[in-house]
Amino acid sequence: MNLQAILDDIAAELGPRLGEGKVADYIPELARLDPRRFGMAVTTLAGETFAAGEADAPFSIQSVSKVFTLTLALGRAGDALWRRVGREPSGSPFNSIVQLEAEKGVPRNPLINAGAIVVADLLLAGRAPKTAIGEIVGFLRFLADDDSIVVDETVARSEADTGFRNRALANFMRAFGNLDNPVDLALGVYFHQCAVAMSCRQLARAGLFLADGGRDPLTGRNVVTRERARRINALMLTCGHYDGSGDFAYRVGLPGKSGVGGGILCLAPGHGAIAVWSPALNEKGNSLIGSLALEMLAKRTGWSVF
Amino acid sequence: MNLQAILDDIAAELGPRLGEGKVADYIPELARLDPRRFGMAVTTLAGETFAAGEADAPFSIQSVSKVFTLTLALGRAGDALWRRVGREPSGSPFNSIVQLEAEKGVPRNPLINAGAIVVADLLLAGRAPKTAIGEIVGFLRFLADDDSIVVDETVARSEADTGFRNRALANFMRAFGNLDNPVDLALGVYFHQCAVAMSCRQLARAGLFLADGGRDPLTGRNVVTRERARRINALMLTCGHYDGSGDFAYRVGLPGKSGVGGGILCLAPGHGAIAVWSPALNEKGNSLIGSLALEMLAKRTGWSVF
Amino acid sequence: MNLQAILDDIAAELGPRLGEGKVADYIPELARLDPRRFGMAVTTLAGETFAAGEADAPFSIQSVSKVFTLTLALGRAGDALWRRVGREPSGSPFNSIVQLEAEKGVPRNPLINAGAIVVADLLLAGRAPKTAIGEIVGFLRFLADDDSIVVDETVARSEADTGFRNRALANFMRAFGNLDNPVDLALGVYFHQCAVAMSCRQLARAGLFLADGGRDPLTGRNVVTRERARRINALMLTCGHYDGSGDFAYRVGLPGKSGVGGGILCLAPGHGAIAVWSPALNEKGNSLIGSLALEMLAKRTGWSVF
Amino acid sequence: MNLQAILDDIAAELGPRLGEGKVADYIPELARLDPRRFGMAVTTLAGETFAAGEADAPFSIQSVSKVFTLTLALGRAGDALWRRVGREPSGSPFNSIVQLEAEKGVPRNPLINAGAIVVADLLLAGRAPKTAIGEIVGFLRFLADDDSIVVDETVARSEADTGFRNRALANFMRAFGNLDNPVDLALGVYFHQCAVAMSCRQLARAGLFLADGGRDPLTGRNVVTRERARRINALMLTCGHYDGSGDFAYRVGLPGKSGVGGGILCLAPGHGAIAVWSPALNEKGNSLIGSLALEMLAKRTGWSVF
Repeated sequence: MNLQAILDDIAAELGPRLGEGKVADYIPELARLDPRRFGMAVTTLAGETFAAGEADAPFSIQSVSKVFTLTLALGRAGDALWRRVGREPSGSPFNSIVQLEAEKGVPRNPLINAGAIVVADLLLAGRAPKTAIGEIVGFLRFLADDDSIVVDETVARSEADTGFRNRALANFMRAFGNLDNPVDLALGVYFHQCAVAMSCRQLARAGLFLADGGRDPLTGRNVVTRERARRINALMLTCGHYDGSGDFAYRVGLPGKSGVGGGILCLAPGHGAIAVWSPALNEKGNSLIGSLALEMLAKRTGWSVF
Repeated sequence: MNLQAILDDIAAELGPRLGEGKVADYIPELARLDPRRFGMAVTTLAGETFAAGEADAPFSIQSVSKVFTLTLALGRAGDALWRRVGREPSGSPFNSIVQLEAEKGVPRNPLINAGAIVVADLLLAGRAPKTAIGEIVGFLRFLADDDSIVVDETVARSEADTGFRNRALANFMRAFGNLDNPVDLALGVYFHQCAVAMSCRQLARAGLFLADGGRDPLTGRNVVTRERARRINALMLTCGHYDGSGDFAYRVGLPGKSGVGGGILCLAPGHGAIAVWSPALNEKGNSLIGSLALEMLAKRTGWSVF
Repeated sequence: MNLQAILDDIAAELGPRLGEGKVADYIPELARLDPRRFGMAVTTLAGETFAAGEADAPFSIQSVSKVFTLTLALGRAGDALWRRVGREPSGSPFNSIVQLEAEKGVPRNPLINAGAIVVADLLLAGRAPKTAIGEIVGFLRFLADDDSIVVDETVARSEADTGFRNRALANFMRAFGNLDNPVDLALGVYFHQCAVAMSCRQLARAGLFLADGGRDPLTGRNVVTRERARRINALMLTCGHYDGSGDFAYRVGLPGKSGVGGGILCLAPGHGAIAVWSPALNEKGNSLIGSLALEMLAKRTGWSVF
Repeated sequence: MNLQAILDDIAAELGPRLGEGKVADYIPELARLDPRRFGMAVTTLAGETFAAGEADAPFSIQSVSKVFTLTLALGRAGDALWRRVGREPSGSPFNSIVQLEAEKGVPRNPLINAGAIVVADLLLAGRAPKTAIGEIVGFLRFLADDDSIVVDETVARSEADTGFRNRALANFMRAFGNLDNPVDLALGVYFHQCAVAMSCRQLARAGLFLADGGRDPLTGRNVVTRERARRINALMLTCGHYDGSGDFAYRVGLPGKSGVGGGILCLAPGHGAIAVWSPALNEKGNSLIGSLALEMLAKRTGWSVF
């Protein structure tokens, strides 16, 4: 299998469609992105990386960060996390508050906004937001083996200024006693984790441990146990694309997590990690071109887990 | 790996817990079952079958039947099916009607009751219910290579007499124009498919093609394409256990479909098919002991898809 | 106050707007009505009747019938009725099923479809539907002092043939044990009560007792106690126009009940009863011209209860 | 009719039941109240005031304030208010956020929390919160003809510290563009209006204009037009007691508005204004004893509007 050829084919085939979809407009800083941008990178367990398009352009990882904060939170709290957040697909858009009212402030899963705010609150743990943010960025640098990864402060500020719906979610959960820290501090962590900028190459590298049973195949370091890696993948597969998760599983068949910045991290257990980026989104809020690229890749490689 | 030893261990370890959970009581005929019954069978791609407990006792497959009618409906209608039913987890109990109102009579997926009634309506296709039921039973006999499989008419009648909620779902969808046939006929097919009685051994055998890319490894016959088999598995993983699907994926990591009769069919792609049965259900309506047995099996075999 | 002049003014002023709105299309028999038809009648406690337009044209009273079956049911069951149906506005369209799921099969109030089906079930009381229907029609004839009132059987059949959503509601409540009789029989009563044909003049006359504290001012007969009359009026004011009830109270300020046939019965306690009919509906399912006519009448007469 | 005797009878009859119900516990400052306290006052259009219990004890008027801010907002914005808030009963608890999501940030009516926050935002109108609060308190002093009315700053602070759910509502509406001012400023106004302390005597006096067609019968000053007074009363009748509004209309038959502090203001058009206070609430969040007292008063006086 010639992965480079596959990526080249994908880029060539999707080229004419770049621009389809709609760039997220509720974060002003992201709304300015050219919808036709595109990048993709695959890193195999053997350590080879294949790339297409702007694989080295940094973009706002947004909700893709939730996979990594979840990993940290499980390390910190273990199964106690599940007392505060569920493990079920939400059947609702990413920022819905309806389910929270029916289920008394317990979010459906850690990969929707409300759930990730609970995770951020747990990581904050009474510390200064700066410390928690530092831990998250440090973890991403460690996983990607790249110290140049930083938070884009302009984006972070833009999110804080306009994140009324996330502020509603956080206050709502606080009303039910499901946030331990002041709302503004928990949101501070959350807005900064979303504003981390990474390239496809960095993102694929950072996620690689999830494709190899929790172990970084290039350094040999165990990041999480095999069981935990599997479980994180399972959550991504069932919940990683909001209420487009079922369709993604159907068409791609790989665990993945998307962000409104247009990035998607996808894992092929036993094979490698894939990151793709293109800012224009489909109607479910997932990268339109990114989803198509992953569908094509899964078909050509046969990497579907099913 | 000694599968027989694994099954024996599971049976031994779960023995003391048999009876935990609650037998479904809304179908009188099923409510009478002893909650401590248990059976399990694994059929490998190589054709070996391993069993524990009452692996040959017939039970009411109930919603497990939805996997097979979905397979038939995709064969008949292809992607046109997706105009009438979605592919997303429902985030709701198996018989919820709320989502149907919000989404104008289009069920979330074909593995919840409403979706399976649409599938039954599609299979009916203007024919006599008896003909469609015959086709379904014939397909199960063909897959299981066993002509003794039949509908338990007492259960079918019991469902028809008490299935008010399913009747509500069907009428509701009919009001939105999403049933082509008279409600009573579509429900006739649905109630009968649910009332098919099969043993764990038969069920594992019948599902085997889904563990081998759509091909029956024992006869060599292609039942569906590899792509379709993957897609059916993906639907099972995201939607197969109602609003316990996320938890099942998290703990077991295999595509599966449960029924309120206490049966679960589970696929381990590349390895084999598993069927387990124990009538007492957990609070999400899935076999409590069955789920635990599958979690143990997945752990011991490492068959998780993640 | 010259009521006839007021009615004439209303008819003249609304004349040019006749046809605005949309005739209900889900009952084929009603869909055929000319949207520009209009009739109105006011009967005072002194026994005078004033009329405009087609005040003697019979129309399908539809949900207006719910006021009268509620009156009968309270006579039969008293406060025990409130164990099976609530007294709160629904905050939802007339045929919503969502609330029923959340509140376990107990409809919000007796003036929405689900609640009226419960009332019909209560009136049925194990008798033949024909007997219960006879009782309802008899009550209307008695109140209107007019033996010519009948069920329009063509409309009744049309409702039965197409009432999938009502059938869904009924089955759903039956699943929760909130219908005592077979669904088809309770719906038989319901579909027939809706299909009663009455003119504005008959309807105003029939409702007159509710404007005089439960006593028919023309015959002197007590129909219900003063307290019960007030309570029925209160229910109409809060729940009589589906999720347009608040707006109707705001603009008209009188208890009333509308039907999808385009009729509205309205009570002015201490003054008289008003019936208006015009088939084209507003977006909440209430007669558009009828609502405007009542708003004008209330303004000119000062009959608002507030 | 001897109103004093009626009040004495009510107080005597309800005495043994004082303490039933549950004091609101989510505002710490209110949670400390003795549940057995009780006061009641009736002011007639003739200017006589009758009282029972602690009719001069100040209590936190909480949501009763919404009637007065609504009056001010209609004076300021007229019907333009209805572009930002509806006029329908919510069918939900007072602090529900579900409806807001379905209806894109437009609250159901101005008498639930979300709606009153929109009203507060409208009154704020770019001014300092202190100015808007001053206007509200000034209006209450004017209406009650009593300059001693003040905001209880301890309660206001207590609300601000614990009002996470209101903060969620406000941020949620801001996300939909339905708040013009910063969330914290609008909430500042809202929390202070709720924290106004008034006695039953003051409250009945302040509401008197609504019982006399918008005109203060004691000073002869027109506060609002007759039409507007009627409309405000209509809103109170359909929406004044959250999802207990229908039941209140059924049992009492008068427009009224309750607050979680245990107060209820009730209007008897053409007769007078009634205020009652007792801190323990029923399951819908309305004063349990207060509701019973009003039911008894309405029955004895025959003041029901129906």
